[in-house]
Amino acid sequence: MNTIEQIFSEKKVTYYFDAEFSYMEQLIAKENVVILTDENVFQYHAGKFLGYRVVRIAAGEQHKNQSTVDRIIKELIVLEADKTTVLIGVGGGVVTDITGYVAAIYMRGISFGLVPTSILAMVDAAIGGKNGIDVGLYKNMVGTIHQPDFIFYDHSFLQSLPVKEWINGFAEIIKHACIADALLFSMLEKHTLHEFQADETLLAELIEKNVAIKNAIVTRDEFEKGDRKLLNFGHTIGHAIENIHGLPHGFAVSIGMAAACNLSEQISNLHFTEAKKIIMLLAKYHLPVDIETEHEQIFDILKMDKKRSNNAIQFILLEKIGKAVIKPVSLDVLHQHIKEIV
Amino acid sequence: MNTIEQIFSEKKVTYYFDAEFSYMEQLIAKENVVILTDENVFQYHAGKFLGYRVVRIAAGEQHKNQSTVDRIIKELIVLEADKTTVLIGVGGGVVTDITGYVAAIYMRGISFGLVPTSILAMVDAAIGGKNGIDVGLYKNMVGTIHQPDFIFYDHSFLQSLPVKEWINGFAEIIKHACIADALLFSMLEKHTLHEFQADETLLAELIEKNVAIKNAIVTRDEFEKGDRKLLNFGHTIGHAIENIHGLPHGFAVSIGMAAACNLSEQISNLHFTEAKKIIMLLAKYHLPVDIETEHEQIFDILKMDKKRSNNAIQFILLEKIGKAVIKPVSLDVLHQHIKEIV
Repeated sequence: MNTIEQIFSEKKVTYYFDAEFSYMEQLIAKENVVILTDENVFQYHAGKFLGYRVVRIAAGEQHKNQSTVDRIIKELIVLEADKTTVLIGVGGGVVTDITGYVAAIYMRGISFGLVPTSILAMVDAAIGGKNGIDVGLYKNMVGTIHQPDFIFYDHSFLQSLPVKEWINGFAEIIKHACIADALLFSMLEKHTLHEFQADETLLAELIEKNVAIKNAIVTRDEFEKGDRKLLNFGHTIGHAIENIHGLPHGFAVSIGMAAACNLSEQISNLHFTEAKKIIMLLAKYHLPVDIETEHEQIFDILKMDKKRSNNAIQFILLEKIGKAVIKPVSLDVLHQHIKEIV
Repeated sequence: MNTIEQIFSEKKVTYYFDAEFSYMEQLIAKENVVILTDENVFQYHAGKFLGYRVVRIAAGEQHKNQSTVDRIIKELIVLEADKTTVLIGVGGGVVTDITGYVAAIYMRGISFGLVPTSILAMVDAAIGGKNGIDVGLYKNMVGTIHQPDFIFYDHSFLQSLPVKEWINGFAEIIKHACIADALLFSMLEKHTLHEFQADETLLAELIEKNVAIKNAIVTRDEFEKGDRKLLNFGHTIGHAIENIHGLPHGFAVSIGMAAACNLSEQISNLHFTEAKKIIMLLAKYHLPVDIETEHEQIFDILKMDKKRSNNAIQFILLEKIGKAVIKPVSLDVLHQHIKEIV
């Protein structure tokens, strides 16, 4: 196990890499912990949770909503969780998002830690303190920014991760490469998904590299006034597609990145050979790069995007691989071009 | 109008005293504002809100819950409120608490201001960034600490305030005197409720003095690790009584303060003549100081109090008028004494 500490504006977050879940009880006494997990994780890893109080939620993005939060809060009250309780979320992005949100609002805030069990959660969702739930079609419409006390990486959880979820997570890894790290992009070109699945040392290197990229961006702009928006590359259109088609997050973001590359060629001078390399890399990691869709429906959702200010959307575009920029794109311009880019 | 600025850890809060609501549009363009108010305030002051988008909620503590929050969020989405929107809560403590909570979680946080319309909200609820909603019998079980951008005092809202609500607010004023300001205690002894109602200059002095007391405590301990707990004087038992008997907050806190004075005589050496002066002052301002109640039921609620850590409750007790202390009182000791103190 190796640990790093990352200082955010309000608190220090400790990262435990290459750790084993059983080590947790040396960090916090079991009786002070409530584990929050989903039915899938619980089914495969129940043995890890012996002796802990566990709150289980149904698996899946469709449960990332207020009624799940209501139920968790009622269970915490029944379990007599109080301000000394540490809530530990063990799961994918849905679990880590809900855990952060519940910990932010229960009794006006309690301590919490995250144990991401999917690639997506390990390299993205668990990091940076953003939490939230969906309201109807609107993703993360409600939430806070609230850092965990720690993030704990135990690769053994990945043994139960379906291959589709591996692919899902690699979308965010490719995103990190596109916006901030041309060397990571080359590393991804050099290897294959199968190699990362089979070689734990290679995987550990990849995860720590991605944690470092995200931390570097988030710590210089925790409350998303500027550079943190870069992490939304592919997400503006991606979220709309995710809502309409019910695609996994990474698949939708992949299509969103391809669309943002098309827009980047037109608006931010991304060279077409680089745009092509990105689309090739997405395809190499088995991610979709286009979809048959209702463009007007996408546009209606974009209008309500959280990244909208007045009548323009702050779009994340690429200048080259490894260098992203934020440009306002007016709703009118977007409406004109939506059919060409998606 | 006179303004002060108070620096909290995360932001600067501006106070507009002796202001008129119509001045608001000089601070923020009407089209960027959504007003959140309750049916009572809207009924009496609808003229003030012309040209604003207004979200109305039912009046009363029983509506300070998640289903009201759910409805507000849906209305904000319909109104296309976004990150540039300023939510302005105009009302008593229920409205100011809900406004702060919604602003903290909508789109992971938007700007907000408060226009307290009751004495209680003016001297207490609106100040210090605590917000929250009730979960069943548990008061403020869910919420955050999130400072408003401004607080705006327009005394004309008090014209529609029922006398019972004036009395309700004076409980928190007497609380401030008890825990932090013996001179304020003397001022309250010298005057009557009727004098404060009839003399706007005297009232303005009282309000600003109370804002200053609360700000001084909150800014030195925004996240309630220490001194901010002093503001809970009377609230531990008060909240339990409020829940069981459905009494107005101030009335329940008054009974809670009387109980805490009894406990203070036993545990923190409060002189019995001072305890008596406090109970006399509460009575002078038409506040109740005892109640026929089910002691076991009070105890059951105390067990779940947010101020509980392990098996003791952090009780706020007085050493003398103007000087409060925090002492842990074990649940066992409390159980033994509950019948003598309430």
